[in-house]
Amino acid sequence: MEKKWRTGITLHKGEDTYIRGYKLLDLVGNLSFSQAIYLILKGELPSEKEAKMMDAIFVSVIDHGIAPPSVIAARAVASGGNTLNVGVAAGVATFGSAHGGALEDAMKFMQDNIDKNVGELVKEYIEKKKPIPGFGHKYYKEFDPRTKRLMDIAKSLGFYDKYCAFAEKVEEEILKQKGKKLVLNVDGAIAALHRKWGLTGGLEKDFSS
Amino acid sequence: MEKKWRTGITLHKGEDTYIRGYKLLDLVGNLSFSQAIYLILKGELPSEKEAKMMDAIFVSVIDHGIAPPSVIAARAVASGGNTLNVGVAAGVATFGSAHGGALEDAMKFMQDNIDKNVGELVKEYIEKKKPIPGFGHKYYKEFDPRTKRLMDIAKSLGFYDKYCAFAEKVEEEILKQKGKKLVLNVDGAIAALHRKWGLTGGLEKDFSS
Amino acid sequence: MEKKWRTGITLHKGEDTYIRGYKLLDLVGNLSFSQAIYLILKGELPSEKEAKMMDAIFVSVIDHGIAPPSVIAARAVASGGNTLNVGVAAGVATFGSAHGGALEDAMKFMQDNIDKNVGELVKEYIEKKKPIPGFGHKYYKEFDPRTKRLMDIAKSLGFYDKYCAFAEKVEEEILKQKGKKLVLNVDGAIAALHRKWGLTGGLEKDFSS
Amino acid sequence: MEKKWRTGITLHKGEDTYIRGYKLLDLVGNLSFSQAIYLILKGELPSEKEAKMMDAIFVSVIDHGIAPPSVIAARAVASGGNTLNVGVAAGVATFGSAHGGALEDAMKFMQDNIDKNVGELVKEYIEKKKPIPGFGHKYYKEFDPRTKRLMDIAKSLGFYDKYCAFAEKVEEEILKQKGKKLVLNVDGAIAALHRKWGLTGGLEKDFSS
Repeated sequence: MEKKWRTGITLHKGEDTYIRGYKLLDLVGNLSFSQAIYLILKGELPSEKEAKMMDAIFVSVIDHGIAPPSVIAARAVASGGNTLNVGVAAGVATFGSAHGGALEDAMKFMQDNIDKNVGELVKEYIEKKKPIPGFGHKYYKEFDPRTKRLMDIAKSLGFYDKYCAFAEKVEEEILKQKGKKLVLNVDGAIAALHRKWGLTGGLEKDFSS
Repeated sequence: MEKKWRTGITLHKGEDTYIRGYKLLDLVGNLSFSQAIYLILKGELPSEKEAKMMDAIFVSVIDHGIAPPSVIAARAVASGGNTLNVGVAAGVATFGSAHGGALEDAMKFMQDNIDKNVGELVKEYIEKKKPIPGFGHKYYKEFDPRTKRLMDIAKSLGFYDKYCAFAEKVEEEILKQKGKKLVLNVDGAIAALHRKWGLTGGLEKDFSS
Repeated sequence: MEKKWRTGITLHKGEDTYIRGYKLLDLVGNLSFSQAIYLILKGELPSEKEAKMMDAIFVSVIDHGIAPPSVIAARAVASGGNTLNVGVAAGVATFGSAHGGALEDAMKFMQDNIDKNVGELVKEYIEKKKPIPGFGHKYYKEFDPRTKRLMDIAKSLGFYDKYCAFAEKVEEEILKQKGKKLVLNVDGAIAALHRKWGLTGGLEKDFSS
Repeated sequence: MEKKWRTGITLHKGEDTYIRGYKLLDLVGNLSFSQAIYLILKGELPSEKEAKMMDAIFVSVIDHGIAPPSVIAARAVASGGNTLNVGVAAGVATFGSAHGGALEDAMKFMQDNIDKNVGELVKEYIEKKKPIPGFGHKYYKEFDPRTKRLMDIAKSLGFYDKYCAFAEKVEEEILKQKGKKLVLNVDGAIAALHRKWGLTGGLEKDFSS
């Protein structure tokens, strides 16, 4: 293999591992798991409020029953007689445009359209019959309770910003124009909250470098 | 990465790829898919009869309905909105000690016990309540029709040897001692047929080299 | 799980498994592996020539050294101490838009553009700096030897049709317009040959049904 | 599929998801990610100190450079042109007896041998040339700095118990008997700390139920 992989995230120097410039061992015992994940993704330490928001986001999607395809895949693989982590791997692989993966599409949708007129934007999607990523849910028809909870927390921590407002405005416009609700789902809500942190761009840059 | 991976299977020289010493392009159009797989696994070209047996084995397990866990995993992953090959990957990962993977255990069982007294061997497994790999099936209680078909073909091609006889003797002994049939399943039958070709050893050797 | 998965490929009736309407056990010993794969994909048995072409295609991509990312992934997973099939699964998951997966995009490209003026088509892609799927290769700059071999076999078997001609015409036009060759690679060649069999459409239909 | 999957972890009732008896939405904003993971694994909420220990453990293994096979697999799969999560899945699948997966074996080793005479135990393993899971490291020959950090934190939080002492005693005995150090690695250290929480047993029980 001639190719050379680079990373802006991690570095080995002597016996020490550094993450984003911080010595790993200095982080152990001083950062929570969420804080360390934030550091890896964003390249800087979170404030206390940002860490709280991050925890809320992770906990909101830590489980959703045994019906989702990712759970089915994980258990099917484990039931073949494989180790736990191979089952988990199948579960992780399951996320895609139709399950969980809407998050990335929703981030892109918000990033690209944040400054547009929401009424016209929704009209265009409805006319072209294009699905709006982050909206609609199989079970939740009135509202996604996880979205509501995350938005309440975002407000109390001061993170409810123009992306959150945009997302809720899109939900309203869909109801107005379609006469039917497509709820802002938990993926859409997280997408709006992540946008605030500029996470889309950061991730891609580090990943391809 | 300082590690160096070696392979006894494949070689690049100039613009040419060689498999087991044969130039890949010379094989294209001259070998069937099964013959090429045999070459990769065993390091030599199969006879016409060996190729026929190989084809029979592959076709016998090409499909078994939509109930097996490997199919469920594949479809669950695809249903998340992923590409076809990622679904297939999950299906392949599903094989394990409880599904399909019995094949490897069964090969080892036959390799280790071929020269033992079958009656005593089965008695030992029954007393210790150890499952005998390659025997028993969820649906087939009288016989596994795929086993029967493969054994018939093996006989007509001259491949029915001491491993096949051993496997069928084990099936008989289980019935005699337990008073209940545990059929020689398709994994067990393929294991017996593969042993003839010494495939267990070969695979492992190449893989770790 | 309330969802109901359907399939047009496989059926269990009593103790028998049927594939595309054929009893599995009748196929064992009578079809080669490639013929059985063709049956599953296309829903009908191949002619002798079609089976020969299918074998040539499979053998042409059965191995390409140890450098490809799919091989690296497979060996990395196995080197962690996992079973062979979990390593293979990682290799299968590796296929994507940048490795192997060009095949599907190339099929779509040919399907959509077969009736267009090739000169104008290539001009449009070059002007918009869009990559043409199925063309270009990291190592092969003059021609992909696997493509040449497959096209020769296609001609001798009578499978060289308008899709193959179209693919070679695109290669020529790229050279003419860019002054630089982007070879019709093995993915592009297989895409052209698969188009003949209408495989794109078939696969998707069965898969989503 | 006739099989029925049960779970002791999660429950849907009306529109609400419950984890281990707690309503998911009540946990969002009130638990950290680590606390929620602990709840899922162990079935009860952690004390503040247990949550701190859990965070230290997770952060200690959040990154270890780009050389490990799990990282290579993840990047190889992503480099094929796949989505981020499919790359992560390959990384997760890589953990096995030779990488990361020692953790489970080490937990079992400690569980089975905690009450034995350490000198005789180590002698037996050395005589039979059996590797002791959780000991030895490719790079760290004097001590694993992550182990040292975790043990210091365990002491300060009051979690240094008989399993930790046992693990360190095994490390000493190996040095005494072999005349060469095989360091208690981070997997071994985490295994000792997890034992305290009885995690082995719990996990398996829930998983198979």
